Amino acid sequence: MNALIERLRDGLPEDAVLTDPDVTGSYAHDMASFCPAGTPAVVVLPRTVEQVRHVMRTATALRVPVVPQGARTGLSGGANAVDGCIVLSLVRMDRVLEVDPVDRIAVVEPGVVNADLSRAVAEAGLCYPPDPSSWEQCTIGGNIGTASGGLCCVKYGVTAEYVLGLDVVLADGRLMSTGRRTAKGVAGYDLTRLFVGSEGTLGVVVGATLALRPRPPRQLALAAEFPSVAAAGDAVCRIMAAGHTPALLELMDRTTLRAVNELTRMGLPESTEALLLAAFDTPDPAADLAAVGDLCSAAGASEVVPAEDEAESAMLLQARRSALVALEAIRGTMLIDDVCVPRSRLADMLQGVEAIAEKNDLTIGVCAHAGDGNTHPVVCFDGRDPQEARRAQSSFEEIMALGLELGGTITGEHGVGVLKKEWMARELGPVAMEVQRGIKQVLDPLGLLNPGKLF
Amino acid sequence: MNALIERLRDGLPEDAVLTDPDVTGSYAHDMASFCPAGTPAVVVLPRTVEQVRHVMRTATALRVPVVPQGARTGLSGGANAVDGCIVLSLVRMDRVLEVDPVDRIAVVEPGVVNADLSRAVAEAGLCYPPDPSSWEQCTIGGNIGTASGGLCCVKYGVTAEYVLGLDVVLADGRLMSTGRRTAKGVAGYDLTRLFVGSEGTLGVVVGATLALRPRPPRQLALAAEFPSVAAAGDAVCRIMAAGHTPALLELMDRTTLRAVNELTRMGLPESTEALLLAAFDTPDPAADLAAVGDLCSAAGASEVVPAEDEAESAMLLQARRSALVALEAIRGTMLIDDVCVPRSRLADMLQGVEAIAEKNDLTIGVCAHAGDGNTHPVVCFDGRDPQEARRAQSSFEEIMALGLELGGTITGEHGVGVLKKEWMARELGPVAMEVQRGIKQVLDPLGLLNPGKLF
Repeated sequence: MNALIERLRDGLPEDAVLTDPDVTGSYAHDMASFCPAGTPAVVVLPRTVEQVRHVMRTATALRVPVVPQGARTGLSGGANAVDGCIVLSLVRMDRVLEVDPVDRIAVVEPGVVNADLSRAVAEAGLCYPPDPSSWEQCTIGGNIGTASGGLCCVKYGVTAEYVLGLDVVLADGRLMSTGRRTAKGVAGYDLTRLFVGSEGTLGVVVGATLALRPRPPRQLALAAEFPSVAAAGDAVCRIMAAGHTPALLELMDRTTLRAVNELTRMGLPESTEALLLAAFDTPDPAADLAAVGDLCSAAGASEVVPAEDEAESAMLLQARRSALVALEAIRGTMLIDDVCVPRSRLADMLQGVEAIAEKNDLTIGVCAHAGDGNTHPVVCFDGRDPQEARRAQSSFEEIMALGLELGGTITGEHGVGVLKKEWMARELGPVAMEVQRGIKQVLDPLGLLNPGKLF
Repeated sequence: MNALIERLRDGLPEDAVLTDPDVTGSYAHDMASFCPAGTPAVVVLPRTVEQVRHVMRTATALRVPVVPQGARTGLSGGANAVDGCIVLSLVRMDRVLEVDPVDRIAVVEPGVVNADLSRAVAEAGLCYPPDPSSWEQCTIGGNIGTASGGLCCVKYGVTAEYVLGLDVVLADGRLMSTGRRTAKGVAGYDLTRLFVGSEGTLGVVVGATLALRPRPPRQLALAAEFPSVAAAGDAVCRIMAAGHTPALLELMDRTTLRAVNELTRMGLPESTEALLLAAFDTPDPAADLAAVGDLCSAAGASEVVPAEDEAESAMLLQARRSALVALEAIRGTMLIDDVCVPRSRLADMLQGVEAIAEKNDLTIGVCAHAGDGNTHPVVCFDGRDPQEARRAQSSFEEIMALGLELGGTITGEHGVGVLKKEWMARELGPVAMEVQRGIKQVLDPLGLLNPGKLF
């Protein structure tokens, strides 16, 4: 190992190579529960593209695996270390290099925090829409690696739709540019998109050109209470079929509402089975909310409460954003699923999850990006109880099986990582898996980049 | 060759295998000028996925190249035959299988004509935005192959953004599904995007799941006249920097205006150097047009004329849509370029093209999707005059060189085909080209799919 450290130090500043096991151990895993993580040999924190190239050249020369990392807020173990690896943390490459209001692009390094970018572009009257729940911590590089979503996707789409071009250091240290800084471009295969969502298995993203949008007007929200998750799912269908485009359309079930109240004392309605939050950032949001409120009532909502003002709207969103932390508190441990179904099947999905919870005698809280059909069933359990943990694991898998049965995907936005790799093969089938492996082989013939993830 | 025909007939109906050279010859090329095209051995017109699989199995067994084709409206020779090939025309697979207003998707066969799909989804209150100029002829399969754009891209994006999932027959006849019918999904590498824009070189698209949008309100347009192309380019920058999102923002230069008048007797202003067309489909398009009109005036517009009504708006767009045909009439032959630059460099691009025309003593008319920075300089020449043809070819290449110099791409939406393959290598550089070739090798190890295109 000393040869590795020595060689890494040849091209990196002193403070960019961490070897103290107490320190490197803290880089071993992301925020996923129950995902195996190995012990890194070393953690490197480069500040320049040239330093990243040095790391990859070294790794290739010595055949050492490399695990690229952002803020480690991932939920699938995609950033977990493997034994003896180099953890390549990009968090120090955190500059916004350019914001251009005419071309509506930002050029950034991978370690920029999502919310920092949002604030930087807001100053130029622009907006970078993708907003994962972890936006105050997560990095753009991590967002690109997992093709992150967020609350705004129902109107504004996911990370992939905002990545125009990338600078990527390949496994052998060569630098490749993909894509463009123009609005359009079709020269050759879309390598940019190939890297988005590749979870660090194809190369190391060291720069990105991102598309921006004009800042939308402030949004106004409403909350609608439903006597069943099925009725809430029906409301979502009616809203979308009527041609509305809310800026967000979120759902929390009763378990989630209670957990959020427990955590925040927000006083959300606990007797309702499902709460739907809709928001509009259109020129006349109040009119759109009124129309959506009527559709909720027609679907059986017992109560429709438009927010009084922006502050109240923001509070409702805050409740939704605190759902995961709140649910974790219920039994101390949780498994967060991320199944996305066609939104026409949302009600079936929600009812199916209720049945799975009952069958396995467990609490499963559901929050969902309902407008996208992207559900996050959270299986709550006591991790110290092996039997309960087994039932939790089984529920987690039954939820994915149900999602596939309903024409959905095992992961809408969290990625595959180590958590769902067996399930990825089930979803994609043998022919697509062979092609996926072939592409991996082209870009990482020695299998050094984030091994054990995806495949 | 008889063995090939016989074997193809084993799995195809009688009328799906064309061998008469007079007939097959008419399938030899698309609409690009000056692109080499070979002589097909046979043209097949399957109606089912199984029939396509039979064709590909046969091609692989006998090592015969296959050229997939849609309506052959392409402008880069991407659908041109090679000697002895099977032309695989998908035009008979032309069914819209499903339109779902809740999931906002359409499931289609590849031979569906773009405008037919638009009409079919309009009946369900929905919209499929991508609208290439050839939309009344071109097929969705062809649009996917070339990642087509159109007039609406400045607001609604390109074909790639509307393809959620694909069914693809691989070179060896295996069937692979990619992507999803959900709003989101990140399981594995994005193979869907890899096929979009791959120009038939990686597999044969036999089905597509497309994203739809709610139908926008009808649009209202204005025309603004400028004393120079630079002033028009400046207006585009001001419009975008001010945060407007027009539904289209198109430019025609004086040469184009005169040619359109010549063809259509529309009475467009001929003394102006550049005409900018802007349209909005917002809730209050008149207000947006007024604001944009002011910005045009500030940039030096001599005249700003809002359309009186929808009919007049439609007529302005009709003028824009007839630009290419009109320009072709000037000298009988044309080379259509497709250089896209950052919109902040649009004025530089337009002035540079003027200089190239002058230097080469040629007429070059420019129409452009100005809001995207996507210019179509059309080099007009007399194809019977070898010297003029040489100067035209040289201008065509100087235009691409200028585009790259300005940070642009050689092709915004028409694709590489055979027309621009040397230039693709120049744009992408050796590392990206090696990766592109590696991916081709994974999916088409025998090199049978549309050989000679892209590479």
